[in-house]
Amino acid sequence: MSEIAHLGPVELLTPDGDASLHFFTQVLGMEIEGSEGRSVYLRGWGDYQRYSLKLTESATSGLAVLGLRAWSAEALERRVAAVRAAGLGGEWSDGAERGRGAGYRFAGPGGHVFELYHEVERYTAPEHLRPSLKNQPQRYTGRGAAVKRLDHVNVLSPDVRPDREFATDVLGYRLYERIELDDGTEAGAWLSATIAAHELIYTKDAYGARGRLHHLAFWVDTREECLRAADLFLDHGIHIEAAPSKHAIAQGFFLYGIEPGGNRIEVTTGGYLVYDPDHPPTVWTEEERRRGQAWGVQTVESFHTYGTPPVAAPAS
Amino acid sequence: MSEIAHLGPVELLTPDGDASLHFFTQVLGMEIEGSEGRSVYLRGWGDYQRYSLKLTESATSGLAVLGLRAWSAEALERRVAAVRAAGLGGEWSDGAERGRGAGYRFAGPGGHVFELYHEVERYTAPEHLRPSLKNQPQRYTGRGAAVKRLDHVNVLSPDVRPDREFATDVLGYRLYERIELDDGTEAGAWLSATIAAHELIYTKDAYGARGRLHHLAFWVDTREECLRAADLFLDHGIHIEAAPSKHAIAQGFFLYGIEPGGNRIEVTTGGYLVYDPDHPPTVWTEEERRRGQAWGVQTVESFHTYGTPPVAAPAS
Amino acid sequence: MSEIAHLGPVELLTPDGDASLHFFTQVLGMEIEGSEGRSVYLRGWGDYQRYSLKLTESATSGLAVLGLRAWSAEALERRVAAVRAAGLGGEWSDGAERGRGAGYRFAGPGGHVFELYHEVERYTAPEHLRPSLKNQPQRYTGRGAAVKRLDHVNVLSPDVRPDREFATDVLGYRLYERIELDDGTEAGAWLSATIAAHELIYTKDAYGARGRLHHLAFWVDTREECLRAADLFLDHGIHIEAAPSKHAIAQGFFLYGIEPGGNRIEVTTGGYLVYDPDHPPTVWTEEERRRGQAWGVQTVESFHTYGTPPVAAPAS
Amino acid sequence: MSEIAHLGPVELLTPDGDASLHFFTQVLGMEIEGSEGRSVYLRGWGDYQRYSLKLTESATSGLAVLGLRAWSAEALERRVAAVRAAGLGGEWSDGAERGRGAGYRFAGPGGHVFELYHEVERYTAPEHLRPSLKNQPQRYTGRGAAVKRLDHVNVLSPDVRPDREFATDVLGYRLYERIELDDGTEAGAWLSATIAAHELIYTKDAYGARGRLHHLAFWVDTREECLRAADLFLDHGIHIEAAPSKHAIAQGFFLYGIEPGGNRIEVTTGGYLVYDPDHPPTVWTEEERRRGQAWGVQTVESFHTYGTPPVAAPAS
Repeated sequence: MSEIAHLGPVELLTPDGDASLHFFTQVLGMEIEGSEGRSVYLRGWGDYQRYSLKLTESATSGLAVLGLRAWSAEALERRVAAVRAAGLGGEWSDGAERGRGAGYRFAGPGGHVFELYHEVERYTAPEHLRPSLKNQPQRYTGRGAAVKRLDHVNVLSPDVRPDREFATDVLGYRLYERIELDDGTEAGAWLSATIAAHELIYTKDAYGARGRLHHLAFWVDTREECLRAADLFLDHGIHIEAAPSKHAIAQGFFLYGIEPGGNRIEVTTGGYLVYDPDHPPTVWTEEERRRGQAWGVQTVESFHTYGTPPVAAPAS
Repeated sequence: MSEIAHLGPVELLTPDGDASLHFFTQVLGMEIEGSEGRSVYLRGWGDYQRYSLKLTESATSGLAVLGLRAWSAEALERRVAAVRAAGLGGEWSDGAERGRGAGYRFAGPGGHVFELYHEVERYTAPEHLRPSLKNQPQRYTGRGAAVKRLDHVNVLSPDVRPDREFATDVLGYRLYERIELDDGTEAGAWLSATIAAHELIYTKDAYGARGRLHHLAFWVDTREECLRAADLFLDHGIHIEAAPSKHAIAQGFFLYGIEPGGNRIEVTTGGYLVYDPDHPPTVWTEEERRRGQAWGVQTVESFHTYGTPPVAAPAS
Repeated sequence: MSEIAHLGPVELLTPDGDASLHFFTQVLGMEIEGSEGRSVYLRGWGDYQRYSLKLTESATSGLAVLGLRAWSAEALERRVAAVRAAGLGGEWSDGAERGRGAGYRFAGPGGHVFELYHEVERYTAPEHLRPSLKNQPQRYTGRGAAVKRLDHVNVLSPDVRPDREFATDVLGYRLYERIELDDGTEAGAWLSATIAAHELIYTKDAYGARGRLHHLAFWVDTREECLRAADLFLDHGIHIEAAPSKHAIAQGFFLYGIEPGGNRIEVTTGGYLVYDPDHPPTVWTEEERRRGQAWGVQTVESFHTYGTPPVAAPAS
Repeated sequence: MSEIAHLGPVELLTPDGDASLHFFTQVLGMEIEGSEGRSVYLRGWGDYQRYSLKLTESATSGLAVLGLRAWSAEALERRVAAVRAAGLGGEWSDGAERGRGAGYRFAGPGGHVFELYHEVERYTAPEHLRPSLKNQPQRYTGRGAAVKRLDHVNVLSPDVRPDREFATDVLGYRLYERIELDDGTEAGAWLSATIAAHELIYTKDAYGARGRLHHLAFWVDTREECLRAADLFLDHGIHIEAAPSKHAIAQGFFLYGIEPGGNRIEVTTGGYLVYDPDHPPTVWTEEERRRGQAWGVQTVESFHTYGTPPVAAPAS
């Protein structure tokens, strides 16, 4: 059992703030919770925090910071101590982030910036977004793909093994699935702090670059909503990189598109829950991965190489 | 094979134009094609004509006119002749209706006003509604329940038998299902001009009133969209009269709500197609109807008595 | 309005009767209605005739005969006269086919064998398959993909234009969509005798061969059932040639697999209904087809070349 | 974070073993893992243990034992100590249960028998049930409703408060939702050991009886599968007590039927995940409950009174 409750909010960078904002509000259907400087705070109708996405206009695309909420104040202290003991450095950024308490910001082995925190403000919906069902943070507006909440983040890793070990040993994540190439290289690790099949994913960066984002995934409750989102992407001119289908790894149902700022976004649902406390990680070989996704779909080349910010040329 | 191609557009009356318009555009997700006087012309994203619903502010609710498109100019002539031969009267209203040619307006045996026509303008989407797929009349905006098109109309009949005979003998509709009470009274008739399981339905008016509407039904492609529409009705404060479930008769999947003007609106999908040219109508007995809908759901009392315009008291 | 009510039953050939039968009964979930000699008669739970598929063990795979039910006895006479007038020959085969009356068997321009008939026996379910809802021919067993009924047939044509003209001019089919290559060649025609978006499809045979089958399609009511069928194909070792996605043409949702006898089988749903009696056919260009399916999926090469029976080498 | 990993297996009693077995295997679609004496061991295709249901023929219906897997051997020791400290008694039953290690059996405050255990055998599929995807314990057969796994159990409590306190204080469950009547009585408690919205539910026994079962719930991944299950229940003659709809509490999508042995069985999906470690429980009032389920459906009276084993007459 991890002392991390869950991942998020995420700060995402975009070189085209207006177009990205249009995508997140009109195509994904998120609500604007507020804005500040060059950032807009966005939420899905099922997010319990005030926001799960901080969209910041910037010179480039990519992931700025990945929030990690600790289970309690004590858990936060213990995780920060573990991060420091692991020699990862970092520092406290007291109350700098909207709607939450003190956070500890540091970079993981692969260069991704995390912020550990515990205190947070729960969302209170304004009148026009007040839900009918009291066990729901916000009304269901149904606009666009109407994503419910942030689900998981897949980051590209220059070297998966140390990143994966950091997640399991320092953060306490559990490893549910991974890819091991024929030469023993780890090519991907699917990690979770809960029974959900994945929350944090490391996959090998084709360019060996540090700190890049593969994709952010937002949850919808049904596969039909993924299919519907594909129609919305199509009619909004959003590039569909991978049409809806089912992953072999983690068995999630997916739709991948590239938002106008260049970041890859997934609309996801399905998968399985891991109730087994001793769950042995599934290990996929190169040969098995060559079979494609669950139903044999071969993902396009860009899916295995493109990340944000883009890089000029392969490092190797 | 009927000489009627299909039903619609429908002119619907509402005593609260603004609230009804909000419902049809924001909750059902229809587009405004235009407006004229006290009427607004509305369409689903799959309607091939310019509009399928003419919403008119009025002192009361209910159905004003039910359009019936004839298969051809000749078919129109023949159907008008048949209407006249049946002694139903009526008159030509040359080009009075937006986007279509000459129409012949008359009242059926039960007092419902129909307009037979053939010539019609096909919809051309403006730039912001231009679809990505060229075999689709309009882009899929996904707003609200995002109904695709008008599907069928259920009108309350003071006496089902003559209305049913008018539909089959004069209009050439086919009868696919009906209810016959123990005393031989016909209590409902499900009629179609095509292989779709129902387009025009007559059900017995509990008050014996003439010309009333039971409901207008708009099509969505999936049951999931009916379920989703129920969440939208809930969070928009639309009264859900019957939560999503499956009809026994015609096997359609349904959601019934009452729009702010008082008219009952169905979001529908499913059912079956009748490919058999000699299809023997299914006849349901009183006892069979007492079992409720397909999965045993008993519809609320109002479903069997309420119609628009409302009537003060039962006639019998 | 065509005088053909619908297509089917279909006689399909297989070199591996046992394996094909296992596929149709256990994976697609059809019922065995009977058997005779080397043929087994199969049905979906929604087929109104006794069977919609006659599966016959043979030296090769492919389509033996495509049934076409005429709207009436008179319509049958008129269509036979039209076939003869078109110089297509053929002959009456009196009562030779299980559960139906006289049929007229002939070959279309592209070499596909059709049989026109009208009289037919409606299915009466045996006790163990008696349905709960009386407007359903058979109980829903839910076994395998549980296909409801035969939906459409796609045949490969050595030359699409004459086949398409035969369908529209001789049989009275309506043309809803077609592909026209840059050099003016017709590469595909989507035809229907009803408001359903397609029932009979001709697509160009890559080898210029005569009489070959591209695929038989069976209907399910929901996209979820197509997705579920993909899981079943996967776990039954059925080769998935094209994972579930949405067609651009006709907008049907599909899953394509190859049954053990080598024939391509589609599980299909969705699409649109054509209520417009003057529907102008959608014409797709080469460039438009290069964009792939609705959501950009590129079908594999075999989808454009493979048919049954297989041919040794391209004719051109 | 609870030291209980999850609930199950469940031992369920039935006075009609053959008919119940037919229901669980042919209608719910579970697999027989083995049998022993008067018990049959059953599993869903997603259960990681050898079985999740032990069905035992008996003089009556109801719940015999509710398994609770502890997170680790140490967690098991600590939970047993907590149970004893709470004065609930119980005893170790060494290795008596198929496929698992030592268990500690005791009765909760409301008379329900639990068995705490940790060691367990993971399922290894035999050849004919070997899955295609290696991250799945068993192939997807698709038979009947094809339930994936045991999801949750709702037991009737003579007094909800002490049962709820036992679950939270002794077992470490988290309380996500509850019902509080106007007079302060607790009428229901929705508890979970994970982020899933409910795993163990206590609802007030209308008869004040001890140890009774309200229902066992089995998971399917989609709402469409709940709808499909309703068709299967209908055509298999299984009494549908509550047709598919959406709960207000926990927002699960449901279908309730009564299996031939008399026990209420739910096919469930949907709901929400609780990522917030400080989630404040939702409290429902009497008035709010009177509004019915999410979309206004009023559950039938039997749903609020019937449990197994049945009782002769109300205690109060």
